Amino acid sequence: MRTSNFLIATQKETPADAEVISHQLMLRAGLIRKLASGLYTWLPLGLRVLRKVENVVREEMDASGAQEVSMPVVQPAELWKESGRWEQYGPELLRIHDRHDREFCLGPTHEEVITDLMRNEIKSYKQLPINMYQIQTKVRDEIRPRFGIMRSREFLMKDGYSFHVNQASLEQTYQVMHQTYSNIFSRLDLDFRPVLADTGSIGGSASHEFHVLANSGEDDIAFSDSSDYAANVEMAEAVAPTATRPAASAELAEVATPGVKTIDDLAAFLSISPDTSVKTLVVNGEEEGQLVALILRGDHQLNTIKAEKLEGIASPLVMADEEIVRKACGAGFGSLGPVGLTMNVVVDRSAAVLADFSCGANKDGFHFTGANWERDCPLPRVEDLRDVVEGDPSPDGQGTLQIKRGIEVGHIFQLGTKYSEAMKAQVLDETGRNVTMTMGCYGIGVSRVVASAIEQNHDDKGIIWPTAMAPFQLAIVPLNMHKSEEVAACAEALYTALKEQGIDVLMDDRNERPGVKFADMELIGIPHRIVIGDRALKEGNVEYKGRRDEDSQLVPQDDVIEFLNQHLAG
Amino acid sequence: MRTSNFLIATQKETPADAEVISHQLMLRAGLIRKLASGLYTWLPLGLRVLRKVENVVREEMDASGAQEVSMPVVQPAELWKESGRWEQYGPELLRIHDRHDREFCLGPTHEEVITDLMRNEIKSYKQLPINMYQIQTKVRDEIRPRFGIMRSREFLMKDGYSFHVNQASLEQTYQVMHQTYSNIFSRLDLDFRPVLADTGSIGGSASHEFHVLANSGEDDIAFSDSSDYAANVEMAEAVAPTATRPAASAELAEVATPGVKTIDDLAAFLSISPDTSVKTLVVNGEEEGQLVALILRGDHQLNTIKAEKLEGIASPLVMADEEIVRKACGAGFGSLGPVGLTMNVVVDRSAAVLADFSCGANKDGFHFTGANWERDCPLPRVEDLRDVVEGDPSPDGQGTLQIKRGIEVGHIFQLGTKYSEAMKAQVLDETGRNVTMTMGCYGIGVSRVVASAIEQNHDDKGIIWPTAMAPFQLAIVPLNMHKSEEVAACAEALYTALKEQGIDVLMDDRNERPGVKFADMELIGIPHRIVIGDRALKEGNVEYKGRRDEDSQLVPQDDVIEFLNQHLAG
Repeated sequence: MRTSNFLIATQKETPADAEVISHQLMLRAGLIRKLASGLYTWLPLGLRVLRKVENVVREEMDASGAQEVSMPVVQPAELWKESGRWEQYGPELLRIHDRHDREFCLGPTHEEVITDLMRNEIKSYKQLPINMYQIQTKVRDEIRPRFGIMRSREFLMKDGYSFHVNQASLEQTYQVMHQTYSNIFSRLDLDFRPVLADTGSIGGSASHEFHVLANSGEDDIAFSDSSDYAANVEMAEAVAPTATRPAASAELAEVATPGVKTIDDLAAFLSISPDTSVKTLVVNGEEEGQLVALILRGDHQLNTIKAEKLEGIASPLVMADEEIVRKACGAGFGSLGPVGLTMNVVVDRSAAVLADFSCGANKDGFHFTGANWERDCPLPRVEDLRDVVEGDPSPDGQGTLQIKRGIEVGHIFQLGTKYSEAMKAQVLDETGRNVTMTMGCYGIGVSRVVASAIEQNHDDKGIIWPTAMAPFQLAIVPLNMHKSEEVAACAEALYTALKEQGIDVLMDDRNERPGVKFADMELIGIPHRIVIGDRALKEGNVEYKGRRDEDSQLVPQDDVIEFLNQHLAG
Repeated sequence: MRTSNFLIATQKETPADAEVISHQLMLRAGLIRKLASGLYTWLPLGLRVLRKVENVVREEMDASGAQEVSMPVVQPAELWKESGRWEQYGPELLRIHDRHDREFCLGPTHEEVITDLMRNEIKSYKQLPINMYQIQTKVRDEIRPRFGIMRSREFLMKDGYSFHVNQASLEQTYQVMHQTYSNIFSRLDLDFRPVLADTGSIGGSASHEFHVLANSGEDDIAFSDSSDYAANVEMAEAVAPTATRPAASAELAEVATPGVKTIDDLAAFLSISPDTSVKTLVVNGEEEGQLVALILRGDHQLNTIKAEKLEGIASPLVMADEEIVRKACGAGFGSLGPVGLTMNVVVDRSAAVLADFSCGANKDGFHFTGANWERDCPLPRVEDLRDVVEGDPSPDGQGTLQIKRGIEVGHIFQLGTKYSEAMKAQVLDETGRNVTMTMGCYGIGVSRVVASAIEQNHDDKGIIWPTAMAPFQLAIVPLNMHKSEEVAACAEALYTALKEQGIDVLMDDRNERPGVKFADMELIGIPHRIVIGDRALKEGNVEYKGRRDEDSQLVPQDDVIEFLNQHLAG
């Protein structure tokens, strides 16, 4: 491709409303343009990247045995009413009326459509398992679209759905998809982690998210420094401390703590470390009017997902109202503690091994120091209640946990029978009985992968594309080619030769200053660059520079193709 | 691909609501399934065909120098208000509201979006011409979706838009697109015609439609039997008869014609041929209250597009109200004629060379016979007013016209400045002045191409795919492979060998009766078939049959790959 016939729409200025680096660079490099809030046009350069990602996804999905289909974007409301999602889904679901005033929606996902298709087409267990996917424009009416294509209202998604006669078959396909996703992100050369994820309100039995690690990620990922273990922080188990609780050595003492409301206040007031105190949170119990106190070490954070899964606790988790707490405990928030508490209490594993700890005295403006389990109050039920922190032991027993930010680019999910039951998607099993099909679903945010790759791979000059998704592998930058016949001839010969080898070459034949061309090719992030200029050419050389290299190197003109073949292959 | 891992969803019954053969066969062969009125899911088999068409379109568009982009499906109303189409477009435009109650539409085309993009990105004539295209799902809320994907509410379209500094540049790109479209439909092996088309209400100076010829087509295409000339019947010129008008030989006579209302009535009543009579239609003139009479030979049809383009006639054409006509002429419809008429009159070229013709007497229930121009009434203004008919001379002077039905699959259009003027899309020209860009637009109904190919290529057994869009090139049908090791071994070896050569092979490894497999492979329309059975194999043979062949032929097992290489290449 020549820049004279290819829209290079680079911009010098960083757009004011672009908060994250990928959004800034996608605009500056001319990959996308905003049409309206959360709606973007992919320019030719950006689309080349998107298509490369799409093709890797398609190739690996096909290799896994999945079959590609294409379902409509516009979906009839009837199916969503059948599944129950018409009521459950919030305003992200863009609902529309056709000219006959019938209700439709623009599909954010396609569970209903594929389940409807399968209940009509699949009659027997012999046709199972089957795994269908599509790569399609999805619409989700985000309340606040942002970060460019990272959280846009229209995006390209690979969504896949598998159908099974039983759970064992689902688990098999789930493993294949886990491997397929790993293959995809490995081929794209991304630093990623498949992490255990919460199955949330969709239900289902197992779920993994695939995260590209990058500082700008919205999720915290905990992973072992010495094994494959990785989980969303909300899912990672905080394993029980191996140390036993020391014996009590201090006296229980009530201390007036005027104005102390938080653990930080308390630590400062008493000149203690927060990890020698406990905090007490009160939540609604499972039954109406019931309260449960949750006790954590002062420096730890409550993990609401873990808490709401526990017996006796309302799900979703609801923090109790302060007035109700005051009636039950005799004090408001900031002065609560386990000593003398009469309601149900659950204590986190780490808080349960503390001795001589500080805590609220259930009396406004007072705390205890030197409190001890069993001596001053019973040791309550012990559970894992907290978010893991860096340095915690890895739940798989290997190494310690690190925490990094991640961008979710994929999600695989054992759905079970949520949709197939509601929509009566059944087949005959081996014994001739009707059984409800078991389902899995598998998504990749194809356009999001592009943004996440930039978040992970850039420097102050611009994007640094991983090879598999670079819009072009190599840029040829001839200097003053409109004046120098030698430069033009050398550039044209090289361009032709590389194109014949099937290499994606961008020939920058614009009549621009060298500095402009260099800056553009670096901003765009093309992995390899050959500069052809009169001076080096007189000595029989051209200049090569890899996108991550500090300096360029001279390569004899006669060896350049062999040189490039070696470098581009690596 | 193996049928054991690929959804073969053939059906024996012809679906009741499928009117045209392509719709019937696409359902029966399991290419598509209906989700809701005008909304279809493409099953794996159908999607393979669609992708092949899409790829041919993309390759040829890229080869033409056009650049691929991807614009949002959801478009903001503001742009459509700027172009004026928000008001002009009917209810086919699916208008929606987002969660903030802002107006959007689902794009049936993208003139506004691309013009907005170009006015922001293109500043100078040096960046022109530029030709951008996308291959995208479009939504058009048809009042009566029908014929399956031929007239559906969601469809895959290639839409392209070019921008130019002047008309000459537009014409150059228009020619390139004309050639590119011809290349595309030629590669797809379709019998098609590029035909001159009406530029309609969009305005613009030139337009060609690309039609696939098929009996079920909705358009009548007139084309020369001895040249490249082809035009939509509504556009084809009815050239002036070369014969001059004979001298009058009959007397003008008034005849009572009670109950005669139509030309057919008149011909029967007088025992004459309709082509010796004229009919008179009255339409509104350009000015309010003005009427114009249009005179055609009795057997000819008025061409409204030709008529409304004439000076003095209202556009769009409006037939005058009968009461108003009665006041002006003294008679109602069915008794009108040129003799004694006082309004403006235009006569068709063919009617102008008649002598001794019959016509209404402008007196209810009476006609004249033996009427003659100049003797009985002045010869009015002569124009081309009628549709061409088979046997008319070709307007290019070569041969005579034939008329066949066509399915419109492509449309290229010199748009001019309709959008760029309304949306102020300007660039600096060579002299540094701001000029409005000139535009072309170019569409291909990608999904429609699939249906049109079936309309043109099928028999009573099913589809007969042109090679370039066949879902598979070859079917291997092993008989009783689950019982015969020899058959299985031969089939597997052939399958592997052909796959290695990069041939799209479908191995029918289902445990079905031979008759079922044969019928399915023929219905699906795979161009080549190899049957492997015990009996022939004992003699060292397999059976080959081309989809259009009457009989199969034996091919020695050892020669089969060479045999297939020859047949598949041809």
